[in-house]
Amino acid sequence: MNFAEFGKQYIPRIDRYLEDFFSRKAESAPLPVLADLYGDLREFINRDGKRIRPLLLLAGYAGYGGGRDDEAVPVASILEMMHAMLLIQDDIIDKAALRRGKPALHLLLGEKYSSYTYTDSIGVDIALVLADILFADSLEIVSGSPFDGETKDRFLNIFARTYRVTAWGQILDSLYSLSRDPLGADDVPRTIGSMKTAYYTILYPLQMGHVLSGSRDGSEPESLERFALPLGSAFQVRDDILGLFGTEASLGKSADSDLQEGKLTLLVQHALGVMDGAARQRFLRLFQKREKTAGDIAALRGMIGETGAKERALQELSRLTGEARTALAGLAMAQQYREVLAGLIELVAAP
Amino acid sequence: MNFAEFGKQYIPRIDRYLEDFFSRKAESAPLPVLADLYGDLREFINRDGKRIRPLLLLAGYAGYGGGRDDEAVPVASILEMMHAMLLIQDDIIDKAALRRGKPALHLLLGEKYSSYTYTDSIGVDIALVLADILFADSLEIVSGSPFDGETKDRFLNIFARTYRVTAWGQILDSLYSLSRDPLGADDVPRTIGSMKTAYYTILYPLQMGHVLSGSRDGSEPESLERFALPLGSAFQVRDDILGLFGTEASLGKSADSDLQEGKLTLLVQHALGVMDGAARQRFLRLFQKREKTAGDIAALRGMIGETGAKERALQELSRLTGEARTALAGLAMAQQYREVLAGLIELVAAP
Repeated sequence: MNFAEFGKQYIPRIDRYLEDFFSRKAESAPLPVLADLYGDLREFINRDGKRIRPLLLLAGYAGYGGGRDDEAVPVASILEMMHAMLLIQDDIIDKAALRRGKPALHLLLGEKYSSYTYTDSIGVDIALVLADILFADSLEIVSGSPFDGETKDRFLNIFARTYRVTAWGQILDSLYSLSRDPLGADDVPRTIGSMKTAYYTILYPLQMGHVLSGSRDGSEPESLERFALPLGSAFQVRDDILGLFGTEASLGKSADSDLQEGKLTLLVQHALGVMDGAARQRFLRLFQKREKTAGDIAALRGMIGETGAKERALQELSRLTGEARTALAGLAMAQQYREVLAGLIELVAAP
Repeated sequence: MNFAEFGKQYIPRIDRYLEDFFSRKAESAPLPVLADLYGDLREFINRDGKRIRPLLLLAGYAGYGGGRDDEAVPVASILEMMHAMLLIQDDIIDKAALRRGKPALHLLLGEKYSSYTYTDSIGVDIALVLADILFADSLEIVSGSPFDGETKDRFLNIFARTYRVTAWGQILDSLYSLSRDPLGADDVPRTIGSMKTAYYTILYPLQMGHVLSGSRDGSEPESLERFALPLGSAFQVRDDILGLFGTEASLGKSADSDLQEGKLTLLVQHALGVMDGAARQRFLRLFQKREKTAGDIAALRGMIGETGAKERALQELSRLTGEARTALAGLAMAQQYREVLAGLIELVAAP
């Protein structure tokens, strides 16, 4: 079974669980306007997504011997609810217009609820508080799940770490976007990538699945780390390449946003490293502008391209996926689920 | 033992726990800038506060027979961490300048981290994500606490409800501040008060304490409701009075903010109900202005005062605290802790 087949099997179950959950929440909301908001959340969460985090949790769960899908699917689904929360926050921070090909939630809510109030920021104000609701609803699902107390404690510990570390990554990302000193950032871009992608998207979902399976193999969390960190870094490199050279259709958001926001990606960092003084100054003058024109963006993209940053990133991607392949062989996971993960590596390897 | 004495006994323990917790977090942070942020959180949380929610949890815990303070204090303290999270969000939403007599956290962070980036919104961007960290850190404390699995499940269920219902209240508050149709709001102000104060501040902390004590008396959560809802509503009425007629020194924030933000309090609603058409039109013209001058604020305050709204609110306060006193006698809580709660009623009764 490859990763796509695994997805075909589980994505409909995850989506159905989320759909039902938010429908029930809408029905039990104490006021129509709150029921409406649950409808908006449901629409947002059910937009086309790859569901990679719940799928990895489920692969870890089944791969380490967990056999009760009906118990694992609800807990896996909360990773998608929490992911929606982070996307909503990201879009507020990045002032993004599009998410998964549709309006960012704060814009959609701003439009919808401007008939209630003269407050211009109403969309952001509501979207920001929806984070609390998604967090609370996720906890309700965990506390109501039938796993035993020790398993839940271990799960919640990793769950907590997940959103703490991701928040750290987001804060660093904010501090080093439109950075005043991009040359002094050292390995911050790599740290951001680990936190926001390697740990968040790959390692912690697998470790949560491992814990939920009931396996208490003490060395396996570290073996998972040896696999997940290079794969996660590969994901980040791939995202950085697509963020510079991808299309809006493939990204579901503006293909200019990484440059517009002045994200200090590995490619930008590499480009800065090889430019001569004059070129670097020209680059930074555009890169650090708060509002960039289409011409600025095109010029930046061209300058990065000329440094060979993309080719170097592709080499890095190949090295990292190779490392992940080697580490995969060392996992104590059932063969069938190692194949699922092998399929994921191949998806990342070919951007 | 009255409420103030109970506070004197436990507030130092709560504060010490929080102080130590954030110091440990700062020490284990992977980068100096993240350690610094934990320092900012610690400073924010340890600003003078009444710690009412952790105190009520502890009163419920001890009052229903819980005897291990060292186990209950950490869990009680997370209510203060979560409260800090809500205050940070509130201040972003209300664009508030002051909190507990010092700069709102998003402003403090904006000042501090503007040397990193050209992003003007850096303070808000970071403050917004600190919510995730506070939520995650709170969960880590719960999952590491020694309560048994069933107790934690019950606790987490109320914990989740707490922040869901409070978020609902906050959303309604946003929708009905600077409302385009304040006359059509019906009992929304009362609903906001229940959600943001009665449930959030009084009922759920007591119910969490009850659950943690190990008591499984099935009718007690409802008895707590009969006590907590009128007391919580009294709190809200008191806050609304102080928000209109209090001083900056007593509030720790601008005494004009409720009017500036166009909060649809019970007093405003009462005033609108008794004004004649012309007066009401004059009032609304000022009340719905996005930016009000000091003269506007003074005029609004004067107009509300003339309607007798304050006197009516004081009567309501007296009725509600009377109801709470009656319900208190029906609680199965140990006498000593009912006295603590009686003391709290008296604090609310005399604004």
